[in-house]
Amino acid sequence: MKILAGIIATLLASGALAATSYNNQLAFQLTESLTTEVGPRIAGSAGDQRAVDWAVKNFKQLGFDKVWTEEFVTPYWQRGMARLDIVQPFPQSLVLTALGGSIGTSEQGINASVVMFADLDALKAATPEQVKGKIVFINKAMTKDRSGSQYGPVVGARANGAIEAAKLGAKALIIRSVGTSQNRFAHTGKMVYDDKVEKIPAVAISVPDAEQLARVLTKAPEAQLKLVMHNQTEDAKSHNVVAEITGSERPNEVVLIGAHLDSWDQGTGALDDGAGVGLVMATATLIKQQGRPKRTVRVVLFGNEEGGLVGARAYAAAHANDASQIVLASESDFGAGRIWQFSTAFGEKSLAFGDEMFKKLQPLNIERGNNKAYGGPDVSVLHTLGVPVVTLEQDGTDYFDYHHTPNDTLDKIDPAALEQNLQAWLIMTSMAANTTTDFRK
Amino acid sequence: MKILAGIIATLLASGALAATSYNNQLAFQLTESLTTEVGPRIAGSAGDQRAVDWAVKNFKQLGFDKVWTEEFVTPYWQRGMARLDIVQPFPQSLVLTALGGSIGTSEQGINASVVMFADLDALKAATPEQVKGKIVFINKAMTKDRSGSQYGPVVGARANGAIEAAKLGAKALIIRSVGTSQNRFAHTGKMVYDDKVEKIPAVAISVPDAEQLARVLTKAPEAQLKLVMHNQTEDAKSHNVVAEITGSERPNEVVLIGAHLDSWDQGTGALDDGAGVGLVMATATLIKQQGRPKRTVRVVLFGNEEGGLVGARAYAAAHANDASQIVLASESDFGAGRIWQFSTAFGEKSLAFGDEMFKKLQPLNIERGNNKAYGGPDVSVLHTLGVPVVTLEQDGTDYFDYHHTPNDTLDKIDPAALEQNLQAWLIMTSMAANTTTDFRK
Repeated sequence: MKILAGIIATLLASGALAATSYNNQLAFQLTESLTTEVGPRIAGSAGDQRAVDWAVKNFKQLGFDKVWTEEFVTPYWQRGMARLDIVQPFPQSLVLTALGGSIGTSEQGINASVVMFADLDALKAATPEQVKGKIVFINKAMTKDRSGSQYGPVVGARANGAIEAAKLGAKALIIRSVGTSQNRFAHTGKMVYDDKVEKIPAVAISVPDAEQLARVLTKAPEAQLKLVMHNQTEDAKSHNVVAEITGSERPNEVVLIGAHLDSWDQGTGALDDGAGVGLVMATATLIKQQGRPKRTVRVVLFGNEEGGLVGARAYAAAHANDASQIVLASESDFGAGRIWQFSTAFGEKSLAFGDEMFKKLQPLNIERGNNKAYGGPDVSVLHTLGVPVVTLEQDGTDYFDYHHTPNDTLDKIDPAALEQNLQAWLIMTSMAANTTTDFRK
Repeated sequence: MKILAGIIATLLASGALAATSYNNQLAFQLTESLTTEVGPRIAGSAGDQRAVDWAVKNFKQLGFDKVWTEEFVTPYWQRGMARLDIVQPFPQSLVLTALGGSIGTSEQGINASVVMFADLDALKAATPEQVKGKIVFINKAMTKDRSGSQYGPVVGARANGAIEAAKLGAKALIIRSVGTSQNRFAHTGKMVYDDKVEKIPAVAISVPDAEQLARVLTKAPEAQLKLVMHNQTEDAKSHNVVAEITGSERPNEVVLIGAHLDSWDQGTGALDDGAGVGLVMATATLIKQQGRPKRTVRVVLFGNEEGGLVGARAYAAAHANDASQIVLASESDFGAGRIWQFSTAFGEKSLAFGDEMFKKLQPLNIERGNNKAYGGPDVSVLHTLGVPVVTLEQDGTDYFDYHHTPNDTLDKIDPAALEQNLQAWLIMTSMAANTTTDFRK
C-alpha cells in the first residue's frame, strides 16, 4: 500500500503532496473508532444519535469544509426478549432472533405445532388446512457466492414470509437464517407487514438450529413449540449526516459518495456498514489532503438503511429539485472484502471515461463490469432520479457469514483488504471530481 | 471405511461375519440421536435425566447383556439471566456467559470500573490498591494446537481467577474466553471458590468482546461496567450409566471404555461429549456383533464430568474394591477430530502388546505416543487406582473453537473423521478384550 501516495500524485494535477496527517489506514481507524466508541446503532436509538454526533465530530476534525445533518422521522424498532423452545417431545431452546420490525407475542406466548416448507413459493402453494393454527417454518438454505446473487432468492421469505403465512392462518413465522455460516447465530433483517393481513410474529433461527428443527420434525412431526417475544416500535427522529470538500472550480457539481451510519442492534456493525463509513470518510479526507478537487466531494452517511432505506428516501425527497447537481454517486455497503469489479451506469457518451477509470483500477485486480450498476442501496434511490452511479463491487463470499448477526464485529475486517478498497475509492472519486465529464450524457 | 468389516474379520478369531444390523455409521447415528432428542444435559437437570433414560433405552436396544445406572449426588448449577454492559463512556452490551458454578449478583448488579491483567500471574502479583472495588478483567489469549496443550496455560484464570481476584478485593471477575475462535461466543466452563475467600461472580466474554473491552479501556481507562446475573445451585441426583458385553472366556476381566453423558447447558454437547458417547456405545455394539469377546467390554457413560468429574469420583469410590477387575480403561472426550496418536500407560512387560496394537492402528495414520497416557478425564480417576489406560488422541486443532459454547452442535462433526475414530476404537478395544495380557505387568 506504499504505492498509494504515488497513485494520488499521478492522478492529481497538483503533483506535490501535502504534508500527510492521514494515511492509508484512515478507513480502518475510522471504522475502529465508530464500532468501538459507538457500537450498535439501530435507527432511532441512543446509539444512533451517538453515531450522528460521532460523525459530525469526526468530519469536523478531518477538516471537511461543511458538515451538517438532515433530520427525518423514522420508526424506532426495539428488540425485547425472545425465546423459542421445543416443548415436546425433545425439550430444548433454539437460538433465534426477532426479524426487524416484527411484533411480539402475548405474555403467555404462542404454543403450536409446526409446518415446514422448503421455501416461500412452497408456502404460497399451501392450503389453509395445512397451515391454520400452526407455526410456519421456512427452511431455505443460502449458498455462498462472491457477488451476493444468492441473497435475493432467500430473502423473500424473511421480508414477506409473515404476510404469506398469516394469509393461511399461521400463528407465527420461523425462517432459517438468511446466512451462509454454520455458526450458531441467527440473522436478523427487515421484514414487512401488509395492513390488510393479520400481523404475526416473525423470527429467524440459526442454520444449525434450522437443521436441528428439521431433524426433530422428521422424528416427531407433531412436535410442539413455544415462542415468547417482546418487541415494540415507536416514532423517533434520526439524521443523515452530510459533509463536503468544496470543489475549487466547479463547486456546484457534486460527486456524492455514501455509506449508511445505522447498524442492526446486536453486532457493532463493522462490516455493515462501519467499513463503508470509514471508507468514504477516508476517501474524501485523503483527496482534500492531496489537493482540493475541482468538483465538490460530498459524503453522505445515510440513516436507517436497515429499516428500509428510510434515510435515503428522505434524502432523495429533500433533494429532488437539486439532484441534478449530483454528477455521480456511489455507495460502499457490502462489507470489507476486496473490490473485484467496477460497474457503471453512465450515459453512452461518457462510457469512455468509465474505461479511463477502469484502466487506473485494473492494477488493483479489478475487472470491468457492465453499465447497469446499482450504486448501492441508498444511492440507488438517487439513481431513480437520474443520477449516474458506479459500483465498486466487493468480494462478498464471506459477507453473509456475519451479516445481521452479533458476530459482525471489527475483527472480521482484513485491514489489507480495506486498504485495497480505499485505493479504489480514491482513484474513482478523484477522477470523477477532477474531470468535466457529464456522466448523464 | 468399507474396509472396516475386513479389519474386524482379521482381528477376530470368529472369521465369519454376523449378519450386520449395525454399520460404521453407528457412532454418528447415536451422536445424532442424543444431541437431537435430548440436546443440552447439564448435570442434575431434566435434560440430564432424559440423557440417562436415553442411554439405558439405547443400550438395551443395541443388545448389551447388562445395563444399569449408578446414582450419585451432585450440585445442580442453574444458569439464569446474565447481562454485562459498558455503561460509560461508550454504552454497549458485551457477549458473556456465566462460568459454571458462579454465583449471581444482587438484583441491582455490580457497577464498577475495570482493571485489566495479561494473565492470572499478573493478577496474583497485583496489590489490593490496584484491584479493590473494581472488576478484574483477565485478557489472556489461547492459541491453537493439535494436542490441546494450550488449554492448561489459560484455564487457570477460569478455574481460580475469582479466588485470586477476591483476595485482592475485586467485585467480580471477567475473563477472555478460553477459546480459539473469533466467533462471538463466550465459552463457559467450571470455576471454583475457596470457602475462606469471599465469593464473587465470574463470567467469560467472547474473544471479540475481550478485544473490544481492551480497546475501550485503552481509550477510556475509567470506563464503567455493569454486571447483572442470576444463577443458583441446588443438590440433585444424577447417574453414571453402565452397560456390558459379557466376556465369553474371562467375564471378570473388564475392558472399560467411557465417555461422559452430561454436557454444558448452552450447546447440544455434540463434540463434548456426544461424539464420545456415540463412539464407545458403537464400539462395544460392533464388537459383540462380530462375535462375543473373551473379556467383558464395559461401557461407562459418566455423569457430571463438566462439574468436576463428580460422576467419575463417585464411580471410583464405589468400585475401589473391584477396580482390579478392570484390565484396561480408556475414554473419548476431546471432540470428533481424527485420531493421530496412540499412547499407553502399561506395565513394562505388556508394552509389547501396545506395540501390537499400534501396528494395527498405524494404517489409520496414527502415530505411536509415549507410555504416559492419561486415559481421559473421567478414566484418569481410575488410573490413580492403578488401572492401566490408553489414549487415542484426537486432533483438537479446532476443538476449542466450539468447546463449552452454544456452537457445539452436531454439524461440527465430520462423519468421516468419526468413522476413523470408530475404526481405531474397534481395533484397540477388540485386541484388549481378546488377549490374556495383563497390562498392569
